[in-house]
Amino acid sequence: MATLEDIGVSAFINIGFTFLFLLGFAFIRIQPWADRVYNTKWYIKGMRKSNNRGGVFQRFVNLDARSYVTFLNWMPEALRMSQADIIDHAGLDSAVYLRIYILGMKIFVPVTVAALLFLIPVNVSGGTLLSLKKEVVFTDIDKLSISNVSAGSQRFWIHLLMEYLFTFWACFILYKEYSNVAFMRLHFLATQQRRAEQFTVVVSNVPHVSGHSISESVDQFFQRNHPEHYLGHQAVYNANKFARLIRRKERLQNWLDYNQIKFEKHPDKRPTRMTGFLGLCGERVDAIDFYAEQIRDLDKRITAERQRVLKDSKAIMPVAFVTFDSRWAAAVCAQTQQSKDPTKWLTDWAPEPRDVYWRNLAIPFVSLSIRRLLMSISLFALVFFYMIPIAFVQSLANLEGLEKEASFLKPVIEIKVIKSFLQGFLPGLALKIFLYILPTVLMIMSKVEGHLSLSALERRTASKYYYFMLVNVFLGSIVTGTAFEQLYSFLHQSPTQIPRTIGVSIPMKATFFITFIMVDGWAGIASEILRLKPLIIFLLKNTFIVKTERDREKAMDPGSISIPETLPTLQLYFLLGLVYAVITPILLPFVLVFFAFAYFVYRHQIINVYNQEYESAGAFWPHVHGRIIGSLLISQLLLLGLLSTKKAADSTPLLIVLPVLTIWFHKYCKSRFEPAFRKYPLEEAMEKDNMEKDSESNLNLKAFLADAYLHPIFHSFDNDVVEAVDIRVDKTQSYAASPVRSEITRSEASSPSPPHYVYHYDIEP
Amino acid sequence: MATLEDIGVSAFINIGFTFLFLLGFAFIRIQPWADRVYNTKWYIKGMRKSNNRGGVFQRFVNLDARSYVTFLNWMPEALRMSQADIIDHAGLDSAVYLRIYILGMKIFVPVTVAALLFLIPVNVSGGTLLSLKKEVVFTDIDKLSISNVSAGSQRFWIHLLMEYLFTFWACFILYKEYSNVAFMRLHFLATQQRRAEQFTVVVSNVPHVSGHSISESVDQFFQRNHPEHYLGHQAVYNANKFARLIRRKERLQNWLDYNQIKFEKHPDKRPTRMTGFLGLCGERVDAIDFYAEQIRDLDKRITAERQRVLKDSKAIMPVAFVTFDSRWAAAVCAQTQQSKDPTKWLTDWAPEPRDVYWRNLAIPFVSLSIRRLLMSISLFALVFFYMIPIAFVQSLANLEGLEKEASFLKPVIEIKVIKSFLQGFLPGLALKIFLYILPTVLMIMSKVEGHLSLSALERRTASKYYYFMLVNVFLGSIVTGTAFEQLYSFLHQSPTQIPRTIGVSIPMKATFFITFIMVDGWAGIASEILRLKPLIIFLLKNTFIVKTERDREKAMDPGSISIPETLPTLQLYFLLGLVYAVITPILLPFVLVFFAFAYFVYRHQIINVYNQEYESAGAFWPHVHGRIIGSLLISQLLLLGLLSTKKAADSTPLLIVLPVLTIWFHKYCKSRFEPAFRKYPLEEAMEKDNMEKDSESNLNLKAFLADAYLHPIFHSFDNDVVEAVDIRVDKTQSYAASPVRSEITRSEASSPSPPHYVYHYDIEP
Repeated sequence: MATLEDIGVSAFINIGFTFLFLLGFAFIRIQPWADRVYNTKWYIKGMRKSNNRGGVFQRFVNLDARSYVTFLNWMPEALRMSQADIIDHAGLDSAVYLRIYILGMKIFVPVTVAALLFLIPVNVSGGTLLSLKKEVVFTDIDKLSISNVSAGSQRFWIHLLMEYLFTFWACFILYKEYSNVAFMRLHFLATQQRRAEQFTVVVSNVPHVSGHSISESVDQFFQRNHPEHYLGHQAVYNANKFARLIRRKERLQNWLDYNQIKFEKHPDKRPTRMTGFLGLCGERVDAIDFYAEQIRDLDKRITAERQRVLKDSKAIMPVAFVTFDSRWAAAVCAQTQQSKDPTKWLTDWAPEPRDVYWRNLAIPFVSLSIRRLLMSISLFALVFFYMIPIAFVQSLANLEGLEKEASFLKPVIEIKVIKSFLQGFLPGLALKIFLYILPTVLMIMSKVEGHLSLSALERRTASKYYYFMLVNVFLGSIVTGTAFEQLYSFLHQSPTQIPRTIGVSIPMKATFFITFIMVDGWAGIASEILRLKPLIIFLLKNTFIVKTERDREKAMDPGSISIPETLPTLQLYFLLGLVYAVITPILLPFVLVFFAFAYFVYRHQIINVYNQEYESAGAFWPHVHGRIIGSLLISQLLLLGLLSTKKAADSTPLLIVLPVLTIWFHKYCKSRFEPAFRKYPLEEAMEKDNMEKDSESNLNLKAFLADAYLHPIFHSFDNDVVEAVDIRVDKTQSYAASPVRSEITRSEASSPSPPHYVYHYDIEP
Repeated sequence: MATLEDIGVSAFINIGFTFLFLLGFAFIRIQPWADRVYNTKWYIKGMRKSNNRGGVFQRFVNLDARSYVTFLNWMPEALRMSQADIIDHAGLDSAVYLRIYILGMKIFVPVTVAALLFLIPVNVSGGTLLSLKKEVVFTDIDKLSISNVSAGSQRFWIHLLMEYLFTFWACFILYKEYSNVAFMRLHFLATQQRRAEQFTVVVSNVPHVSGHSISESVDQFFQRNHPEHYLGHQAVYNANKFARLIRRKERLQNWLDYNQIKFEKHPDKRPTRMTGFLGLCGERVDAIDFYAEQIRDLDKRITAERQRVLKDSKAIMPVAFVTFDSRWAAAVCAQTQQSKDPTKWLTDWAPEPRDVYWRNLAIPFVSLSIRRLLMSISLFALVFFYMIPIAFVQSLANLEGLEKEASFLKPVIEIKVIKSFLQGFLPGLALKIFLYILPTVLMIMSKVEGHLSLSALERRTASKYYYFMLVNVFLGSIVTGTAFEQLYSFLHQSPTQIPRTIGVSIPMKATFFITFIMVDGWAGIASEILRLKPLIIFLLKNTFIVKTERDREKAMDPGSISIPETLPTLQLYFLLGLVYAVITPILLPFVLVFFAFAYFVYRHQIINVYNQEYESAGAFWPHVHGRIIGSLLISQLLLLGLLSTKKAADSTPLLIVLPVLTIWFHKYCKSRFEPAFRKYPLEEAMEKDNMEKDSESNLNLKAFLADAYLHPIFHSFDNDVVEAVDIRVDKTQSYAASPVRSEITRSEASSPSPPHYVYHYDIEP
């Protein structure tokens, strides 16, 4: 058991690292070569451009002394933007995401104060440990925890009372926050401008009727059943082959650009290339002609394929985006059952076009059901048995094996320093690789499950990751042994024994979790703002791979906040805080610091870096709420187990009431607020329809909706193939050669059309 | 452990009783005085009248010798009616109810055959018991069960295989039957004639807006949000006081009738009555005048109260039945969310008018949520702790206590016969009373939960009763001790230990359950057809209480099949059959006989006796399906536990797969078929609307729907108060005196209006 001093040392080191990261960030962010990594969002919004003035040196090192004096001013800046502005700037998802941190602070500030003021004195004066072995215990963190209270003491009533108070407080804040977020969502949806998804419903499992194409069936069905409101539909094409061709063309185009730049730099020597495998063998030809020729060939194939996809009835999948003439009609169609056979004509809200996950659109009903079964089983296996394959790999990847396989390495391996490094490193390698790819694996599993939108995929991945962390980080740290061993022992213990087993170990692990919070929470968040990995990757890419402006855009793209990873981590901190609130209150300030610091950092990141790829209007909130309720339940059960080993059995009946009330509270909140996240009230829809009718009576809705849900590759195709143009490349700063400039900008986050590259053709003066 | 002989004796006795009951039924049912009890349905439908010809004796004893010869012909008769005719005659609920028995036979006939053919030989030759103690075991039923197979034997693979086969077969049949019933339901709804509930939606939690009445709010809200389809609404009045007055008037009317009859019989002496308490003291007055006067007074008060209810805005509750101009619009409104606040303007299908439970209409959302929490806790307490108060009452109601309290009884009690009778009887009395009132208690609990329709109330009561039986009859018989003790021991056992504990005891209890099936199933069903209790009650009422024809109608009313009691019992038999199918196959034929016999009997009862009070179109089927799936899961887990004690651990992984597959199957069926029971597809609604529009273009829907959902007491009031008339009473056969005849007939089951008494006034020739 660590002493308070140990904790102090650990805190010192971690705070040191944290400050180092922050300083590093403050210093690097004002350097021009890193500007794109720390202000990505502004570049994407087009409100910041590359600074090309000044000499070569100035472009790489910031020589402005003033900026070094004010290098910490990002901190107040991050807080200056109001919530309404953030919603405007980064979307509601980001604003709601930040509210999770606010929720954490709202819950834990009073809880921390109360726990420190009331529970710590009670624990300290509890006195078992104090009286037993004064010297050893005095510096121990346990003296501040519930372990210090002697068994059977009446003081446990205070802990019980506190658990009640904390639960009620947490529920009160959760209720207010849920109501708040639900209101924000409804308000956001109500004040949104006209968007395609408001009028659109995605219909899956369209039945095949012989003699009718899918399109005819859809038209017929909706003309019959929604005669007054049906407007039209957008078929979904199986365009996988087409997408492959487009990707290939993009690659060739890049090479063409690259060679043209090369030629411009050295107009005396035309670049050449060999025609064979990877350009390494075969006949040597002129590279520009070669790529231009290849692109021309490909263009023909693309056009043919496009014709085929758009004409061939077999390329139309049994899914459609059906549009209506009013929000009311779309709300009606999305919420009602259409067909007598409930596996046919399934309707649901269309995700916004950017959010659609096109590949999953055509999965039939039965297959979906089987996929979900298989993925549930896989997740269970992954959570509980992932150590088995890793242990196997570890047993292979030991030094002896390595020496045997590659005997020439023997002299190197036998060097003592290297050997001990390898021995410490190798066994962990497999595990580290596994943990690194885990989110990707979980995302693939979610994709197999067949969700239709990216936002749903991310939510599902987040909940999978949470289960993994709950079992393998939380339980795994408390109870020794692998998850599989835990599962086995839990199956062979009585249901009342399990909370006891865990409950007893809980206070002993407080030190571990405090360290964990400092390493993973504090330093982790500081490294999040430093963005070391994206910075290095960007610099590497910028140096070696980036050939064109388009490449640089790609290299710079920060993506959205990684909901699948950050959400579960956050929820883990709620769990830790709630579990330890009564048991070892000294842990609470650490959690609190995490929430405050992370709020700060993510506010900055959302404003300056991340670029939300879609807008789900805070659809993840019910999950956040549900997980915190789950954490409350876990904390109550563990306290119950702990108290029952402390011979405070009188309190058991009182503690059993708490989970029942908590579950009821959850059910109530669910029925009270969840509809705001799942359904669209007709009252609202009608209101907006009427407002619109009053303001724009001669609106051509059909034109507005016409191509909203066209597969994004067709959009890029339209703009892409029009003509092959010379492309100006910023990197080389050679303005001269090409008469036509094409700037690639990313479509803005607020635009209703899918993310695709749009070319602006301006004539250079 | 009982021997096969014991079972034989028990079977003989029970079969004897069964035949006795059947013979009794066959004999009594052809007697004129019992005709109304055994052919109630036909009387209610008006297709059978009291037979008043012949002498007094003939009216009480059937003297027709021919009918005694053919007295068993009810058996083929019961089977003659086709399913379509039954739906016509008794409604879809009854027809679907019968299908549960058919489902039982479909599942258990092949299972029984397979189990008897394959498992019994395997068990018999298994040989542990055979080789150990030949003489004792030879007559034991255990020799036929899985207990006879020695531990660790390879024969368990056959049991495993059979469990797989049985599960797949049961699931296959369940799937087909669910699909069948869903189709029947949809077909029934599609071919129904125009009914008020098709156009009506019940809206609860209408918000109070100051300055607006509820009616105005409703009109405004729906005119705004469903402008094209809203037709009107029917307010719901708080008419509890009015209903009390009506009931009181009915009582007085009965007394008036009674006295008039008395006067007609003895025209020389006018009946008199005392005005005091219960007519036992006070001034003696003319009874006819007295009651006529009282009724006149009451009529005034009723009229006043009616005016008040209909006028007073406070008597209007925040609920309304909203009607639309098409089925499509009603389907839309019922399935969508109306308001931004999901606790306001809640819409749901209106139950058919007969099915509405009026008292629960005005419960607000929060209260509903709290009520359900409280009732869940109460149910848990009732299931697990019901023995505590009963044991307390039992401890009070012992002989010593009785002697002390009522010492004058001492000489009687001390008589040996009486003493032993009381000692055997008294302790059980509290328990028997409890079990007798249990369904009523559960129904009250369901009513507190606030369901809006009688059918929902009955379904909820049935599931409560099922949980009670599962714990206290099934588990309670297998594991010794009260439910509370079981709960305690289960909480202190590991989850893997529980199926073992129960699994091991399962084979030993086979004899008990066989006897249970014979007593409760066979003899119980035979007593169901005999209807001894209703017969006696009817005869008693007819002799002592019945004063008028209206009373006799009431005394005769058989009500619906008691879903809350019969459904759980049936589900218990499914559970027994599935659990013992692999373990002790010899139990299966007994279950099978039950299903066949009960099918037979209930078919007869549904055709001739029961009068379904409402039509829910088989809404209980998802429950039936779910419970049978639950039984499958229980049987799999118990087999798992049993096999693990039999050292057949190799089979464990294979058996774990089965529950996973079963749960998946359930989920699949749920999403595949349950929408047919919860939602109304728009396709269907549109089709019917169009058909109707084509056939009756000038239909006045508003008039049709005008009073459909008026509180039933207002209907009876309309017809009742028009005038006070003399009433002819059949019982006395005195046609002469009164010039005006009033026959009371019950409104027919198929009529869309609520059940109320309608008077036909004919002038006597």
